[in-house]
Amino acid sequence: MIKAGIVGSTGYAGEQLVWFLYKHSMVNVEFYSSHNYANKPYNEIYNNYYGYIEDICVDMETAISKLSNINVLFIAMPHGKSFEITEKALSLGVKVIDLGADFRLKSKEVYEEWYGVKHEGEELLGSAVYGLTELNREAIVKCNLLANPGCFPTATILALTPLLKNNLIDSSSIIVDAKSGVSGAGRSANIGSLFTECNESIKAYAVASHRHTPEIEQELSNASKENVMITFTPHLVPMNRGILSTCYGTLKKDVTAEELIALYREFYKRDYFIKILDGLPETRWVRGSNLCHIGIKVDKRTKRVIVVSAIDNLIKGAAGQAVQNMNIMFGLEETTGLEIIAMAP
Amino acid sequence: MIKAGIVGSTGYAGEQLVWFLYKHSMVNVEFYSSHNYANKPYNEIYNNYYGYIEDICVDMETAISKLSNINVLFIAMPHGKSFEITEKALSLGVKVIDLGADFRLKSKEVYEEWYGVKHEGEELLGSAVYGLTELNREAIVKCNLLANPGCFPTATILALTPLLKNNLIDSSSIIVDAKSGVSGAGRSANIGSLFTECNESIKAYAVASHRHTPEIEQELSNASKENVMITFTPHLVPMNRGILSTCYGTLKKDVTAEELIALYREFYKRDYFIKILDGLPETRWVRGSNLCHIGIKVDKRTKRVIVVSAIDNLIKGAAGQAVQNMNIMFGLEETTGLEIIAMAP
Amino acid sequence: MIKAGIVGSTGYAGEQLVWFLYKHSMVNVEFYSSHNYANKPYNEIYNNYYGYIEDICVDMETAISKLSNINVLFIAMPHGKSFEITEKALSLGVKVIDLGADFRLKSKEVYEEWYGVKHEGEELLGSAVYGLTELNREAIVKCNLLANPGCFPTATILALTPLLKNNLIDSSSIIVDAKSGVSGAGRSANIGSLFTECNESIKAYAVASHRHTPEIEQELSNASKENVMITFTPHLVPMNRGILSTCYGTLKKDVTAEELIALYREFYKRDYFIKILDGLPETRWVRGSNLCHIGIKVDKRTKRVIVVSAIDNLIKGAAGQAVQNMNIMFGLEETTGLEIIAMAP
Amino acid sequence: MIKAGIVGSTGYAGEQLVWFLYKHSMVNVEFYSSHNYANKPYNEIYNNYYGYIEDICVDMETAISKLSNINVLFIAMPHGKSFEITEKALSLGVKVIDLGADFRLKSKEVYEEWYGVKHEGEELLGSAVYGLTELNREAIVKCNLLANPGCFPTATILALTPLLKNNLIDSSSIIVDAKSGVSGAGRSANIGSLFTECNESIKAYAVASHRHTPEIEQELSNASKENVMITFTPHLVPMNRGILSTCYGTLKKDVTAEELIALYREFYKRDYFIKILDGLPETRWVRGSNLCHIGIKVDKRTKRVIVVSAIDNLIKGAAGQAVQNMNIMFGLEETTGLEIIAMAP
Repeated sequence: MIKAGIVGSTGYAGEQLVWFLYKHSMVNVEFYSSHNYANKPYNEIYNNYYGYIEDICVDMETAISKLSNINVLFIAMPHGKSFEITEKALSLGVKVIDLGADFRLKSKEVYEEWYGVKHEGEELLGSAVYGLTELNREAIVKCNLLANPGCFPTATILALTPLLKNNLIDSSSIIVDAKSGVSGAGRSANIGSLFTECNESIKAYAVASHRHTPEIEQELSNASKENVMITFTPHLVPMNRGILSTCYGTLKKDVTAEELIALYREFYKRDYFIKILDGLPETRWVRGSNLCHIGIKVDKRTKRVIVVSAIDNLIKGAAGQAVQNMNIMFGLEETTGLEIIAMAP
Repeated sequence: MIKAGIVGSTGYAGEQLVWFLYKHSMVNVEFYSSHNYANKPYNEIYNNYYGYIEDICVDMETAISKLSNINVLFIAMPHGKSFEITEKALSLGVKVIDLGADFRLKSKEVYEEWYGVKHEGEELLGSAVYGLTELNREAIVKCNLLANPGCFPTATILALTPLLKNNLIDSSSIIVDAKSGVSGAGRSANIGSLFTECNESIKAYAVASHRHTPEIEQELSNASKENVMITFTPHLVPMNRGILSTCYGTLKKDVTAEELIALYREFYKRDYFIKILDGLPETRWVRGSNLCHIGIKVDKRTKRVIVVSAIDNLIKGAAGQAVQNMNIMFGLEETTGLEIIAMAP
Repeated sequence: MIKAGIVGSTGYAGEQLVWFLYKHSMVNVEFYSSHNYANKPYNEIYNNYYGYIEDICVDMETAISKLSNINVLFIAMPHGKSFEITEKALSLGVKVIDLGADFRLKSKEVYEEWYGVKHEGEELLGSAVYGLTELNREAIVKCNLLANPGCFPTATILALTPLLKNNLIDSSSIIVDAKSGVSGAGRSANIGSLFTECNESIKAYAVASHRHTPEIEQELSNASKENVMITFTPHLVPMNRGILSTCYGTLKKDVTAEELIALYREFYKRDYFIKILDGLPETRWVRGSNLCHIGIKVDKRTKRVIVVSAIDNLIKGAAGQAVQNMNIMFGLEETTGLEIIAMAP
Repeated sequence: MIKAGIVGSTGYAGEQLVWFLYKHSMVNVEFYSSHNYANKPYNEIYNNYYGYIEDICVDMETAISKLSNINVLFIAMPHGKSFEITEKALSLGVKVIDLGADFRLKSKEVYEEWYGVKHEGEELLGSAVYGLTELNREAIVKCNLLANPGCFPTATILALTPLLKNNLIDSSSIIVDAKSGVSGAGRSANIGSLFTECNESIKAYAVASHRHTPEIEQELSNASKENVMITFTPHLVPMNRGILSTCYGTLKKDVTAEELIALYREFYKRDYFIKILDGLPETRWVRGSNLCHIGIKVDKRTKRVIVVSAIDNLIKGAAGQAVQNMNIMFGLEETTGLEIIAMAP
């Protein structure tokens, strides 16, 4: 059995991780750490575990003291908080999977510019592997520090990579208009996340300034071998879960939607969790699963391609992909513990 | 492997059944029958199965022709539609689990009065077993025709039976105020079920006339050995899933909430899916699971007990309980294929 | 023109008051006071007023200094906060309409028991008038201190008073099962009010202990000339606005729903805002209005009456009724500024 | 008083029209026509009018027979249904305001291509005026046949016209990613509009093929004096009301967001219903109002401008704008009966 520890276990991504690890046949969770709920029973915070998980949340100090007992540490904390515990864990031979942003960007300078905090783990950036599983499996197999991708980047990079790898779109033409459920804002007591403030409304936010922008650009640049810059606009949608990423690019050549669908299916043919639809995705069909649904349309009149991808932001966009990466890092079947289909309605 | 057929597989209860049977380790589904979608691929109606289920829906005639290939038939159709296929299936030695109302009431007359249609399977009523699993396990083991309980009855009977069995409340004092998500109305194209007609509103409906009333009364009468009549008021709540049943009764003796909690825990001590909380249930903590959460409060000032139970109407209130009953009918572990925890948020 | 001041103008009830007073033809608002947003433009907090209200929120100290400029003070603050400013306002001849709970209960002891704070305005309790307009108009005309009713009490007392005044139900049999939208929880940054915590779920809360219980009992006791005790259970529903109160009582005599509907229509015949339906109410049909819709059913089998009432909790349950009362206190037509019909969907 | 008739009064746009006309000080509604609800009381379909509107819905034949009694006919019907009654009304000197699509496009051919039906009123196209009020007031004053704009076009054209009129963006670069509440799908009993199918999900639909595309292009071409083609992608959002249109264009020159905000404010300075924000719009702040909120951001890195506009689809996107246009056509103050502020939450 793999022994795991979770830091930040009471946030929404952390809880989703608990959900998957609880039923994972090859993992035991050794501790649940929480900043806000240390010393409280986990199932008091999340009553869905009543009768299942009897553990008491521990604080960070206790978590650090238990690092030597575990094989893998999952970190689900706000950016800027992962540096110290990551170093300690790695020094003890514990593999680290960070669901936060601290090791995703290869450039310390870009990180500091977009996140506005000092990067205190620069020496680890070289060895950190960006864990968008489908695009990076080989590196993941042998990595010790995995930077789990952000939710918007996961949906967006999966949607655009086949086009860029095949040089099918003008890399300067990319516009990404993304929509997220409210769980993306986390479990913090902010007025802006109240039911009454989010329900029955939609808004754009962080226009031209969202922190996932450089992460998407870094990976699309890798795919295209060009320096890609995109316009990225996230929106907040009144639903708990789900990301829909609507991606626009100008085609470099005449190609039909059918041809692109075939190309995408070939591109992702070994990827269990990626489904290329004939039609268009809806977030409900992936909610609760680790799947990414992708639909492709061509606007012949304007010579643009529109790729729409849907994921569950807490699963393929966070905890599910983290488990998928853990499976690879520990030599397990990639799908272990993740074979769940969306529940409708 | 158990070979199963599903009639009415594209309604919400039918689809939920598909969901559980698809991943059930001991079941193969031999056919998916649908009145409205015969000859269409199942995964076109429910895109969550894209890449998983490749079957084409069959019509009723085809379903009937395949009865001899299966061991168990699940029926998820409107009331009044189950009689013919049930008789045929039973005559071929196929066990039948009917998620509809046709075999729940022991009295033909009561059925005809409340449902307004003729009962065409009277001779089967004697052998039909009411499948509220926790209260009826022994009879379920050997039954061939299982009447799976309604959603409101499941939540309500589980909430009230311990009180009545222990003669703790006045059986003429019971009021049940229940709340259901919109999936309870089924997947029919009715104006009243439109998003825009249900969202941002709550209403009571079928006051003093809902068809689940005699079903609840039948089982509570069994429990109390008295002729119980209740006032039952269902409400429609703007959410997809979930039933919350708030049950009121006048206490016959002084008893504290703590004593009742202990009594309920003892009563349900062998029942994996029933969880007696210290606090109060919320439907989100059972959504997506086969659990029933129960909370108990005593109003000392008015000498009433308030028992609140929460289930997922499509699971413990329909398909999950059907699978639970199938497990018992076929000698499997009761929880097989049902070990799923609610996903939050 | 009536000059008004609002203390607590940035909570949901306060904002709703701003909405009605802004367009009220006979009122000028002299100041908007806010604890959390002092010195911020009102329209930055509520962007719906962008281009309409240019005022800057003031703090309590400033509000107090401006009392001599106004004719009426509206207070929309948490309980226990109204005593000091109320006394000051009254001493300056300013009429006070308190939307909070501080002057609703006639008994200091009952207030202190249920609210858990000391009552510091006992000497004002005698002159405070309980402002359930339809039942108390004469006293409202000449009052200086109006205690505006709570949201659950408004819906519930309007639903039950005709029965009690006519001695039609056993006053010890009353059970009130009420459902509220999330705005009832106010605009505070609590985890429990987050979109992700409320959406797709329903729960009961404060069972047998909600603070609106003694308020309802006080007024029902007045109506029945008996000491009424009720069982009151509030529920939280995933919608912004609306209260549905489902009220149960045991009938003392044989009476049909039709007879009761006629009786209610007679009882409320002079009351513009009370509509007795032939069918059942839904909160959406009163949302955004000052109306109360009431539907009545009789359960012949159990000899109970079920009265269901619907209001908009922020309007008839708070700010709308406050304006209705102000209109009466200042000799205006009762409906002035309140003639708004619910907007559907 | 203006005497009005409404055809299609029981759809969502029709009902919204009823709402505004009921309280309009200068209008009497002479008949409410409905295809599905002829001979039923209007307030049975929409209970919010219980106690207000006592009229019975009439059928089309009756509506036509009453044309000679009215001054203005509002048509709120599906496309292809307006031709006959429009001709009859105009021939009787009745002004016509069509909320549908039949007279919006100047080209019969374009209409027939996108809508797939024959245009049977070609001779009227020359005199029909496109009623995007703010951009077309002079023509509206004297028109007899007003084509009321679509909901997506209203939000989008208002957002982009100032840029195109000032030659600030490359007219071939425009991408419009729009989001609509479910009321945009109308009050038809379709499975796809059920609560359970829309709630907790977002999807794109009609990608590169939505019928509002040529309407937007026609008006943007007028503004830019170029032949504009756009990529337009509508999305369905789980909320009742609201459109958010996120519009992208490549800037032709260096310009800051502040400069653009100033330019927009100048452009719309005489337009009561258009509010240019410092920040970004949210649909909740315009819900229930006839306002259009617009926010502007510049992505310096990619030299694109992002203009986000928000309207209530049933008001500024349908019935409110229709009343605004009627006011102008009849010489009334443009804002008469439309001075309503969004209600929050």
